[in-house]
Amino acid sequence: MKNLLILGAGRSSSTLIKEALVRAEAMGWNVLVGDVNGDLAQAKIEGHPRGTAFALDPHDTEERDRRIRESDLVISMVPAFLHAPIAEVAIRAGKPCITPSYIAPDMAALDGLAREHGVLVLNEVGLDPGIDHLSAMKVLDEIREQGGEITSFESFCGGLIAPESDTNPWHYKFSWNPRNVVIAGQAGAATFLDGGRVRMVPPHRLFQQARSVEVGGMAFEGYPNRDSLAYRERYGLTNAQTLVRGTLRGAGFCEAWQAFVTLGCVRDDARLTWQQGVSWPVWLRTFLPAEYAGLGIRDAVAACTGASESALDKWAWLGLFDDSQGPKTTEGTPADVLQELLESAWVLEPEDRDMIVMWHRFGYTLRGENRERISALRLDGRDSTFTAMSDTVGMPMLLAAEVLLEEGGFGRTGVEAPMDRAYYDVLLPRLEAWGVRFEETDRAV
Amino acid sequence: MKNLLILGAGRSSSTLIKEALVRAEAMGWNVLVGDVNGDLAQAKIEGHPRGTAFALDPHDTEERDRRIRESDLVISMVPAFLHAPIAEVAIRAGKPCITPSYIAPDMAALDGLAREHGVLVLNEVGLDPGIDHLSAMKVLDEIREQGGEITSFESFCGGLIAPESDTNPWHYKFSWNPRNVVIAGQAGAATFLDGGRVRMVPPHRLFQQARSVEVGGMAFEGYPNRDSLAYRERYGLTNAQTLVRGTLRGAGFCEAWQAFVTLGCVRDDARLTWQQGVSWPVWLRTFLPAEYAGLGIRDAVAACTGASESALDKWAWLGLFDDSQGPKTTEGTPADVLQELLESAWVLEPEDRDMIVMWHRFGYTLRGENRERISALRLDGRDSTFTAMSDTVGMPMLLAAEVLLEEGGFGRTGVEAPMDRAYYDVLLPRLEAWGVRFEETDRAV
Repeated sequence: MKNLLILGAGRSSSTLIKEALVRAEAMGWNVLVGDVNGDLAQAKIEGHPRGTAFALDPHDTEERDRRIRESDLVISMVPAFLHAPIAEVAIRAGKPCITPSYIAPDMAALDGLAREHGVLVLNEVGLDPGIDHLSAMKVLDEIREQGGEITSFESFCGGLIAPESDTNPWHYKFSWNPRNVVIAGQAGAATFLDGGRVRMVPPHRLFQQARSVEVGGMAFEGYPNRDSLAYRERYGLTNAQTLVRGTLRGAGFCEAWQAFVTLGCVRDDARLTWQQGVSWPVWLRTFLPAEYAGLGIRDAVAACTGASESALDKWAWLGLFDDSQGPKTTEGTPADVLQELLESAWVLEPEDRDMIVMWHRFGYTLRGENRERISALRLDGRDSTFTAMSDTVGMPMLLAAEVLLEEGGFGRTGVEAPMDRAYYDVLLPRLEAWGVRFEETDRAV
Repeated sequence: MKNLLILGAGRSSSTLIKEALVRAEAMGWNVLVGDVNGDLAQAKIEGHPRGTAFALDPHDTEERDRRIRESDLVISMVPAFLHAPIAEVAIRAGKPCITPSYIAPDMAALDGLAREHGVLVLNEVGLDPGIDHLSAMKVLDEIREQGGEITSFESFCGGLIAPESDTNPWHYKFSWNPRNVVIAGQAGAATFLDGGRVRMVPPHRLFQQARSVEVGGMAFEGYPNRDSLAYRERYGLTNAQTLVRGTLRGAGFCEAWQAFVTLGCVRDDARLTWQQGVSWPVWLRTFLPAEYAGLGIRDAVAACTGASESALDKWAWLGLFDDSQGPKTTEGTPADVLQELLESAWVLEPEDRDMIVMWHRFGYTLRGENRERISALRLDGRDSTFTAMSDTVGMPMLLAAEVLLEEGGFGRTGVEAPMDRAYYDVLLPRLEAWGVRFEETDRAV
C-alpha cells in the first residue's frame, strides 16, 4: 500500500484527485488530500474508501510535514511560493515530489540536496509549463536528429472556451484563477527574439501587439509571455533568430483588454474607496483624465484608449457604460473591482466546456531548404469541473506519479523540468489517451 | 562635548556635514561621519579638527551600533530601508534620531518604543518631505485660525536647474540620485482628489497629465506623486475637494519623458544584452513594434509614442537618433542604459547652480468668499556641491539637531514628522537665513 499525498485541492486539482482515486484500488494507493479548506479536500475525494481528506493549517506545518514523511510521493498543488519548503521536507525524507510550477530560485537551490538524497523533484509538469515542454522538445529533437537547424520557434497556449459554450463577445470564461487573468502580464516586461532582434514590450503595451494564430480553422490572437529569451538556453535554441512564447485569447480579446490596461483598471497597487452605489461610468471616471469630462463615458473611453467600436461593444456587454449598474464592493484596488465584475460575467456554467489550444511553429533549414513545422493541439473539456484545463494540468502529474511509484521512475534525480526524451517518450503517448494529440504539418516555405 | 553622528555622506549630506563642522567649535560638538565609502566620509570632513570619518561595514553593524550608543544624536542619511534599524538602536540607547525620509511601516512601528524611552525620532525633515510640511502646515493653520475652510490644496516641488545654468532643452541636470529620476513614478499608480473625484493615474500615463505651474514668472509643469489621498488625514484636509501633491519639471520635460515611459525605456524589470557597438537607433528598436520597421528611427518613435517635434528634438539632443552614437554598456535593464546616457548628458558642472522650486496653492472660503493663497519658494544653489538641494535637505535636519542638542528639543517624543506649530514655529524662521523664504499672494477668486 502506497501513500500518494496531494497538497492543494483547488480548481486545477479536480482531475488529478479524481483519477488518482480511480486508480487507487488497482495500484494499491491511498490518496491523501490536504487543503487549507478541509471541506474542499473532503468534497474532492467524494467519500472514496481509498481517499483521506485533511485540513492544512497554514500557520502550523507540523501535520503537513508529518504527512509528507509518511507518504511515498508528494504532488504539490499549493500556491507556488510554498513548493520549495514542501520539496525540502520531501527530499530529506527521501520522497519524490511533483509540482506544476516554474522552477523558482528557492526550488533551484534544492537541486544539490535532491541529488544527494537521490530524489527527483519534478516541476513544470502540468499544461503550460508541462505539455508545452514535452511536445516542443519532442519535435525539436526530431528535427535536429534529421539534421535540421532550428531558425525560429514560436509557441502559444491558451485556456479558452469551447465554441459551443462561447456565449459572450470576449470569447472567454474562467477555467482557472481569475486573479491571474486580471493581472496577466502586469508583473514585468515581456522579452523575446524577433528576426534576430531582442524586443521588449512593457506591460502597458502588451495587448497592443497581439498577433493572429490560426488553429484548426479557428482564429486566435497571442500576446508574448514574460521571458522568452530564457528558452534560448532551456530549449537549446542558440541559433534561432525568432523565439517567442505567449498566451492565446479569442479574436478581438486583446484590443478590448488593452483598453483596461491603458486606463489602469488592472492595477493592483493602489487601494481606493468609491461611494456606495457608484455606477460603472462613474467608477471609470477615476481613470480618465479630467480633459474628457465633457464626453459621454463611451466616447471618453474611446478618446483616452483609442479602442475600436468592436472593443467598446465588449465593454458595453459587461455593463460598463450602464448608469444603473456598478461595483458591489466599493473598496479595493482597480484589479479587485474588475475581477469581481468579470467573475460574474465570465462564469463557466456547469454544462460549459472549456478548451485548451496549444500551437508551436518551428522554422528550420534542412539540406538547404527552409521548412516550417506546425504542431497544434485543441482539447475540449468534459464539463465545468473536469475541464480541459484540469485534465491537462492534472494528468501529466498523475502519469508522472505513476511512473515514479510503479515503474522505477525516469532514471533522474535532482530538481528537474521535463525537457528531454526521458520524460516525453514516456508521458506523451500516455497523454494521448486523454486527448492530448498534436496535429502536425510540415512544409517547405 | 557632544557627539553628533551623521550616517551617510552622499550628495545630499554635503551642506549638512559642512555646516555641522562650521558650528562644531561654538557648540562644542564632535561631528562623526560614517559611510560605506570611508574615503567619501573622509573627503566630506575636509580634515576638520572636530570631524571624524569612518567606514561603515554594511555586513557588520557592530561598529555602527557602538557609534550610535556613543553619540548624543544621530542623523541617518543612509538608504531609507536602513533608517528603522538605526532608529531602534538609538531609541534603546536614549538618543534622538533624525531622518529625511517618509515614515515607513517599520519606522512607524517604533513609535511606542520611542515614547517608552522618551526619545524623539524625527523623520521627513528635509526638503520634500520636510520644508513642504512646515510651509504648508503653517499656512493651513493660519487660514483655519482666521476662520477659513480649506476647499483645495495643491502642492508641487522640484529640484531643477537655475536659469543661468540651464543649457539643455530638457531644462534639467542631476542635483540628486539619477536613478530616482529615471524610475520616477514607476513604482506605483498616483492617486489624488480632483474636484471631489478620486483619480488614479497609472505609471505609464503619469507624464501625459502634467499641468502647468508658474512660479515667479517662470513656467514649470507638474506631475502627481504617488499617494496624495493620504494627505486628507495627514494635513487634516477632510473637506478639501481637490488634493494633489506632485513634482515639478521644466516646461516641455514631461511630454518628452512620457515618450521614454511609453516605449518602456525606463523599465527596470528585464535585463537585456545588446551587441557591442550598437547605436542608439538600433537600441531603440528593442522597444518599437515590428510594424514600424519601415520608418526611420525618429519617425518610428513619433508614430509609436505620439511625441511632438519639440519632444523629438529633446531626444535628438541626447543623440538618440544618431547612428554614430550608442550605449557604452551593452548589458542591463533599459533604465540602466538610459541612466548612463543621462548621467553624461545632464551633468551638473562645477560652476552650475541648481534650483529648488516649491509651490503651494490653498483654495479656501472665508466668510462666504472663495479665496486662493499661493505660497511659493525659489532657491538657487551656490555651486554643484553646495546645491540648493543639499542646503534644503540638510539644513532643516541640522537646525532640528541644534534644537534637540542645545535647546531641550521640541517637547515631543515618539516617531514623528514635523506637521505642526511645535516644529514650523521654530524651524521656518531659522531656514529663512538660508534663503528659504516663501512669497505669498492671497486674493479672492
